Amino acid sequence: MESIKTKAYGAKASLIDSLSTLSRMDIERNAPESDQVLIDVLYCGVCHSDLHQVKNDWANTVYPCIPGHEVVGRITQIGSGVTKFNVGDVVGVGCMIDSCGQCHSCTGGDEQYCEGPVSWTATYNGYMKPDGSGFNTFGGYSTSLVVKESFVLKIPDALDIKAAAPILCAGVTTYSPLRHWNVQAGSKVGIVGLGGLGHMAVQLAKAMGAEVAVITHTEEKRAAAEALGAHEVIISTDKKTMMAHELSFDLVLITIPDPFDVNAYVNVVKRDGALVTVGLLGPYKSPLNNMEVAMHRRTVSGSLIGSIKETQDVLEFCAEHSILPEVEMIEIKDINKAFDRMQDEEVRFRFVIDMQSLKNED
Amino acid sequence: MESIKTKAYGAKASLIDSLSTLSRMDIERNAPESDQVLIDVLYCGVCHSDLHQVKNDWANTVYPCIPGHEVVGRITQIGSGVTKFNVGDVVGVGCMIDSCGQCHSCTGGDEQYCEGPVSWTATYNGYMKPDGSGFNTFGGYSTSLVVKESFVLKIPDALDIKAAAPILCAGVTTYSPLRHWNVQAGSKVGIVGLGGLGHMAVQLAKAMGAEVAVITHTEEKRAAAEALGAHEVIISTDKKTMMAHELSFDLVLITIPDPFDVNAYVNVVKRDGALVTVGLLGPYKSPLNNMEVAMHRRTVSGSLIGSIKETQDVLEFCAEHSILPEVEMIEIKDINKAFDRMQDEEVRFRFVIDMQSLKNED
Repeated sequence: MESIKTKAYGAKASLIDSLSTLSRMDIERNAPESDQVLIDVLYCGVCHSDLHQVKNDWANTVYPCIPGHEVVGRITQIGSGVTKFNVGDVVGVGCMIDSCGQCHSCTGGDEQYCEGPVSWTATYNGYMKPDGSGFNTFGGYSTSLVVKESFVLKIPDALDIKAAAPILCAGVTTYSPLRHWNVQAGSKVGIVGLGGLGHMAVQLAKAMGAEVAVITHTEEKRAAAEALGAHEVIISTDKKTMMAHELSFDLVLITIPDPFDVNAYVNVVKRDGALVTVGLLGPYKSPLNNMEVAMHRRTVSGSLIGSIKETQDVLEFCAEHSILPEVEMIEIKDINKAFDRMQDEEVRFRFVIDMQSLKNED
Repeated sequence: MESIKTKAYGAKASLIDSLSTLSRMDIERNAPESDQVLIDVLYCGVCHSDLHQVKNDWANTVYPCIPGHEVVGRITQIGSGVTKFNVGDVVGVGCMIDSCGQCHSCTGGDEQYCEGPVSWTATYNGYMKPDGSGFNTFGGYSTSLVVKESFVLKIPDALDIKAAAPILCAGVTTYSPLRHWNVQAGSKVGIVGLGGLGHMAVQLAKAMGAEVAVITHTEEKRAAAEALGAHEVIISTDKKTMMAHELSFDLVLITIPDPFDVNAYVNVVKRDGALVTVGLLGPYKSPLNNMEVAMHRRTVSGSLIGSIKETQDVLEFCAEHSILPEVEMIEIKDINKAFDRMQDEEVRFRFVIDMQSLKNED
């Protein structure tokens, strides 16, 4: 089978070694199988997970690691059995490119909770097949991707394709729990953290009819939160204000990507309300205090991206409600600087790589 | 108003001071107001909370502290406005003797989550009035109690009154979350810890139609768990067996009263399932790992006793399904030994004080 030469940027080793950076690589993609499409990558969002993964924060990174799971591109070739797409279609790829298809979660349309042998197939740093064979998948910091059509999303015409990419991870990661925990008109929602995920969450929750408060540790983000539509901004380090909001929120959605003290946010959750953490995939900073949880039968939960259906839904929801990620477009050569700025919370709110810049490299 | 001389056992100071013990006291109860009843205490269960409270584990104990919130007794006097009870009725009193009656939770019949000024009024170590006036309520380690009729339970005729007392706390504390998390025929429930709460939980969950596993750290409790009706016993320290039960339970109900590593029990919860801690009212031993929580959208929650309606329900449920706490009857003079044995997990499964022994003291 013919292979497809692909330019990419990836990490050869962990970025914990401060000398390591993402650098230019050449890889080959297999030509699409009958149910796959070949995608010319146009834009790729830069997710905090990309940084976690290349730093090996989850102790599971296989190098080389080519990140990127917020991909917008154009189909240039389709397999013989593809029915959903045509050459020329503008499409998206998120965090998953396959799953076992047979477990309780997959058959119920919740592929993101696949209980197959190796869970779902990650767009990068994953097994190439859901049976656990083949490592290592390479993500969207590259000029081409080959993906099974059932894991490819249609980008609605109304969306600006330059800004749409972050919807595929940041968007669906917040949309899914907002839907699962039944956010609707009249709901009171607190969004903690105002980065890539948080700034999508505010817009989505507001469009669902909720009254949205942004809970942030710094005054600096007040204006941005208000501009995004937040009804209120609460500074989390102001204990008096936090106490005044005791038992206030049906849902507190926490988008902080690094370990934090979860107890600081439990008290503002209503009785029978939920605190849901989506940014942090690891232990909290300190032990959860069950006194505060049990006293009002609160729940502390977590949520992982969203299903393929939910990803399509959020794309359409954003098109319908004129919601877009606020992005800063970068060239691929500036990816290491972008990682540094993301780590320092200096991006407002999401970097997107214009992949033409990679195509133009030698 | 005439007062009622009452014999009691209580702690004059924290039991952390090893010289302190519960000792004989004399107190006075106010004569019942129009909506109150006077109860001659017949039996009082010994709850692990009694030990926590007299040791000041929650840093909120006011001394003297007279514990006891699993009370079975007989009404000897009723206020002029009492309509629900008559002199001679055998009744129960659990953890609450009043609540604000006006908040969202109280008006919805969830007094245990009262959001009034001082939450609900505890049977002991509480404010005497829900507006926060008057401290200190004295519990059932005494010969008489005076309680508002709406917080008094009817003991069904079919229940053995010598053994029924622990239903009022251990029973409802496990019944309430089993109901709230919809345990029913076909549910798979894991009960962690097999003390006073756990041994009620096993019987209640089984009677609701669930398949019940007891998860315990020691082989010693296997026979007892099976005798109570457990379908399976899982030794929590056997990591291989625990791993084999990954994603197995709709609900894992944890009754361990002291800090433990919650992460040890997260993996056995199903996708969208719940882990609910009822024994521990304080921080877990180590930080919760959100990776395992989010990976299958599990929830970690807590639950606090149960409502007055649920308490009446569980009494009737126990009567209907021939469920009784397994109790060891003690005399009041042996309460300090009983505390030591409870601390050492040597009671199977609940001590109940025969209050005649206190009446017989000088």
